[in-house]
Amino acid sequence: MRGEILTLIAERGLVAGDQLPTEQVLSAHFGVSRATVREGLRLLEQDGSVRAVQGRGRFLSAVGDLRVERPVTRYESITDMLEGLGYSVTSAVLDLQEAAADETEAAALGIAVGDDVIRITRLRCGDERPLVVSVDTVPRHLLPGPIGHRDWSGSLTHALKIQGHEIVSSLAQLSSVMMPEGLADRFGLADYDPWLLVTETCMTVDGTRALFAKDYHRGEDIAFNVLRRA
Amino acid sequence: MRGEILTLIAERGLVAGDQLPTEQVLSAHFGVSRATVREGLRLLEQDGSVRAVQGRGRFLSAVGDLRVERPVTRYESITDMLEGLGYSVTSAVLDLQEAAADETEAAALGIAVGDDVIRITRLRCGDERPLVVSVDTVPRHLLPGPIGHRDWSGSLTHALKIQGHEIVSSLAQLSSVMMPEGLADRFGLADYDPWLLVTETCMTVDGTRALFAKDYHRGEDIAFNVLRRA
Repeated sequence: MRGEILTLIAERGLVAGDQLPTEQVLSAHFGVSRATVREGLRLLEQDGSVRAVQGRGRFLSAVGDLRVERPVTRYESITDMLEGLGYSVTSAVLDLQEAAADETEAAALGIAVGDDVIRITRLRCGDERPLVVSVDTVPRHLLPGPIGHRDWSGSLTHALKIQGHEIVSSLAQLSSVMMPEGLADRFGLADYDPWLLVTETCMTVDGTRALFAKDYHRGEDIAFNVLRRA
Repeated sequence: MRGEILTLIAERGLVAGDQLPTEQVLSAHFGVSRATVREGLRLLEQDGSVRAVQGRGRFLSAVGDLRVERPVTRYESITDMLEGLGYSVTSAVLDLQEAAADETEAAALGIAVGDDVIRITRLRCGDERPLVVSVDTVPRHLLPGPIGHRDWSGSLTHALKIQGHEIVSSLAQLSSVMMPEGLADRFGLADYDPWLLVTETCMTVDGTRALFAKDYHRGEDIAFNVLRRA
């Protein structure tokens, strides 16, 4: 429903500050219940795309001046995000290891230090420029089989999903960092500081912590939106 | 209700992964309706403090390893945030101007370029270290009277509130930046890169855009939390 409402907004050419059709009108337009419409609107409010003003209705939010945006409250794979932003994305696997979980990974994934994990470092470029550097760690048993027979350049979220581990939420932390020397030196990433680091533990519906991700988003190109409430 | 539940969690010594009492138990404990309890729990889920697992209940989330955290979906003044984090905060007013709104400020505040604004640049230090640099712009008429008779080192959110303009929400963008040269050179801030920049338009309940803030949070010290949903 969220997507359908966004499409309608685009079709009608609504701009920042314009009022949205009422729940009743949207419900009739899409032929769905008002509860369904309301859930879609709620997600758009969480995104910051839509602003509700008590007693007056819902309005399309002002869109800021940053070049690239996405709502930070929505979990999506990096692949989906960059493609959604219209980038022509290339994904390069820089490193792939079967390794033993270090302390940070073990704490994040709720496993023991030394447990088997897959650790994968990837670089996503958009229009040939580095945009996102990801270091992902997955408990080994969640992606069984020899690692040589998988296409690691695709979405890890998707690989986990078809293995029965669909990620439904994540707990993320955002900070601003320079690229750590190890990664910067090894992969020629020293000249692209600063980065917006999203450190994220991703969970399936049954509470399994399936993925621990450290995603470095190029500061000059990627920003996130959020609606905050007092 | 959010605060009461957090206090209860602290009193009972619950740690990451522990299950919370049910809505029913909390409702009886606090002597309030289940709807009220549910709203408090919903805010805690938004924060990422609490995680709901379908059919199993609500659990206290794992707290990450970053030094300083706060939920990015909650609007609060910088003063309140830093004090809440336990810092002994000093607030220095670096610059105070009655100025004409530039294009960015005008677009954000929904006013005309050249309209009168108050523009204030402040530095918050915690334990003597620079933590947050804020550039705040307020439409002049929202804070009437000569600017010489206000204490600008305090909370601007509070000053607006007692003037009848209580901020209830904001639309924020997060990005990772180096300190702009103008600010870095003038105020000796060149050695503290990178910064997490929150660019924020703050609104009152009647939709007035009362404050446009650019807050630079020192990357090494300040991170934000967020719960993301697929």
